[in-house]
Amino acid sequence: MKKILNQPSAYVDEMLAGLCAAYPEHYTLTHPRVLARTGGARPGKVGIVTGGGSGHLPVFLGYVGQGLLDACAVGNVFAGPRVADCVDAIQAADGGAGVLTLYGNYGGDRMNFEMAQEQLESDALPLTSVRVADDVASASPAERDKRRGVAGMVLAFKVAGACAAAGHPLATVTRVASKAAQACRSIGVALTPCTVPESGQASFQIADTEIEFGMGIHGEPGLWRGPMKSADALTDEMLDLLLPELQLSTGDRVAVLVNSLGATPHEELFIVYRRVAQVLAARGVRPVMPLVGRYATSMEMTGLSLTLMPLDGELETLLTAPADCPFWKI
Amino acid sequence: MKKILNQPSAYVDEMLAGLCAAYPEHYTLTHPRVLARTGGARPGKVGIVTGGGSGHLPVFLGYVGQGLLDACAVGNVFAGPRVADCVDAIQAADGGAGVLTLYGNYGGDRMNFEMAQEQLESDALPLTSVRVADDVASASPAERDKRRGVAGMVLAFKVAGACAAAGHPLATVTRVASKAAQACRSIGVALTPCTVPESGQASFQIADTEIEFGMGIHGEPGLWRGPMKSADALTDEMLDLLLPELQLSTGDRVAVLVNSLGATPHEELFIVYRRVAQVLAARGVRPVMPLVGRYATSMEMTGLSLTLMPLDGELETLLTAPADCPFWKI
Repeated sequence: MKKILNQPSAYVDEMLAGLCAAYPEHYTLTHPRVLARTGGARPGKVGIVTGGGSGHLPVFLGYVGQGLLDACAVGNVFAGPRVADCVDAIQAADGGAGVLTLYGNYGGDRMNFEMAQEQLESDALPLTSVRVADDVASASPAERDKRRGVAGMVLAFKVAGACAAAGHPLATVTRVASKAAQACRSIGVALTPCTVPESGQASFQIADTEIEFGMGIHGEPGLWRGPMKSADALTDEMLDLLLPELQLSTGDRVAVLVNSLGATPHEELFIVYRRVAQVLAARGVRPVMPLVGRYATSMEMTGLSLTLMPLDGELETLLTAPADCPFWKI
Repeated sequence: MKKILNQPSAYVDEMLAGLCAAYPEHYTLTHPRVLARTGGARPGKVGIVTGGGSGHLPVFLGYVGQGLLDACAVGNVFAGPRVADCVDAIQAADGGAGVLTLYGNYGGDRMNFEMAQEQLESDALPLTSVRVADDVASASPAERDKRRGVAGMVLAFKVAGACAAAGHPLATVTRVASKAAQACRSIGVALTPCTVPESGQASFQIADTEIEFGMGIHGEPGLWRGPMKSADALTDEMLDLLLPELQLSTGDRVAVLVNSLGATPHEELFIVYRRVAQVLAARGVRPVMPLVGRYATSMEMTGLSLTLMPLDGELETLLTAPADCPFWKI
């Protein structure tokens, strides 16, 4: 396996050790698989917790930080976190004002967070939950609650985190997290897989000449597989899927995230962003604080995703508010 | 070619268009291949100019920003910038206090910047030049001026940029840039190549089971080629090359940059950083503001580099001073 690691079984724990060694002022492990903000829960602030499989940095744990998340339950690569770690993460984020669990719509993550919440029900800790399900390729609009959560999650983290940092109560933080989750839409394209350390196997198989449009970040099936297209053709096809689900008209403002799934370089993200900006400009729609980079990855997978989130005044204020984690400073 | 692009010949220009569309408040093209800070040269501030081939984002152009660089001459992928663009970049950075050209030690870049400086000699514009030559694999200590410039360049940009932003004169900015360039040492390891758009060819050939230790970022020959080793073994071997050239002893402070060459994921950079921190701690050496991420890449090349720069008080103050470009905020 040509990856830079020691024992594959130590991949996640050694990654966590390095992350905390690099940024001790930001991150503290409160349990072996629970990462929380250094200094503990902020008294009186609504806590926000996420969790999920490893292999997606900065998602999930990277977004623990000022104006973002308070704690994260960390699973193995591409595997949901344990229930006990979800419980511990929620407790680590409890500053006395309640806790929102905010995570992607994957079976394992959902089941384990729901079991954790059940365990904590007797603790008189107010708990709410919002799941992000933004991948338009994964189910039809009529079955939106079956969609997977992908990079749109990052926008929901940002909006909810800013709301909590501003001192709003749990109901408000939950409402804006839900508003962001409802508003965002994403679509991805995959070129090459990554290698999962524990198995040594590629996350999916694909021919040297083929790409898969709409593939999920763990290699879940997409909408079509075929030969490479131009960047502009791919971008237009992504926008053709996203825009009909959004109500964007002249004068509207939108968050735009062009996200590398890992190996796809910044150069190519900007080629795609250029086209997105052209198409939006032609409709009179204005991108706000465009995000172009690696925000939600699958290790060294090649490909990218495009996320749009129409903004009202509240979402725009929260999206552009200050934030500070080692992966994202605003 | 499985890359996200349109016409390969348009790769660089479309990248530049997207970059400037995403961050118009930061970047302005003053010529088709000259990127400068929006708002123009800062009157009374020493200008800092760099340049080099494309395909290395954030190097070179990405580091144009507050507390960093003022302008950049942009070449084709892995090709030096044109002389005329070096001239224009120097002029774009001229705020009346002189200009430092600060770039990596590559033949083409050096020749073209030197020709540009000759052309400008009659302009009464004070010009100095510092080249970064930090790659220990590329020549022996006795031939340091033959070494290539790699990720250490980013530390030199940061230090010089902070010095210029603080209002120091050209002689001081040049002195600290030179001090940083003299102080830093880097070494890389390559796992897989990238594809050069214009040719459609891989930047080098390597077997599925092999890595090349010490390979340059364009595929220049390294020190050995052989089977994969563990992350800790590779890290130790990198440190065994870097540390003997540095005079680090207990209580010393050092800048550490663990840099992905593109595809290598953050997870693996942290596994390496963990080992670096362990080895430095055993020597009583303290990392200052560790940098772990993609700072100098070769598009989707897999591999990483390790850079160390021992710090005195002046370098540490400049390294940790505020900076702001879309790729790096401090």
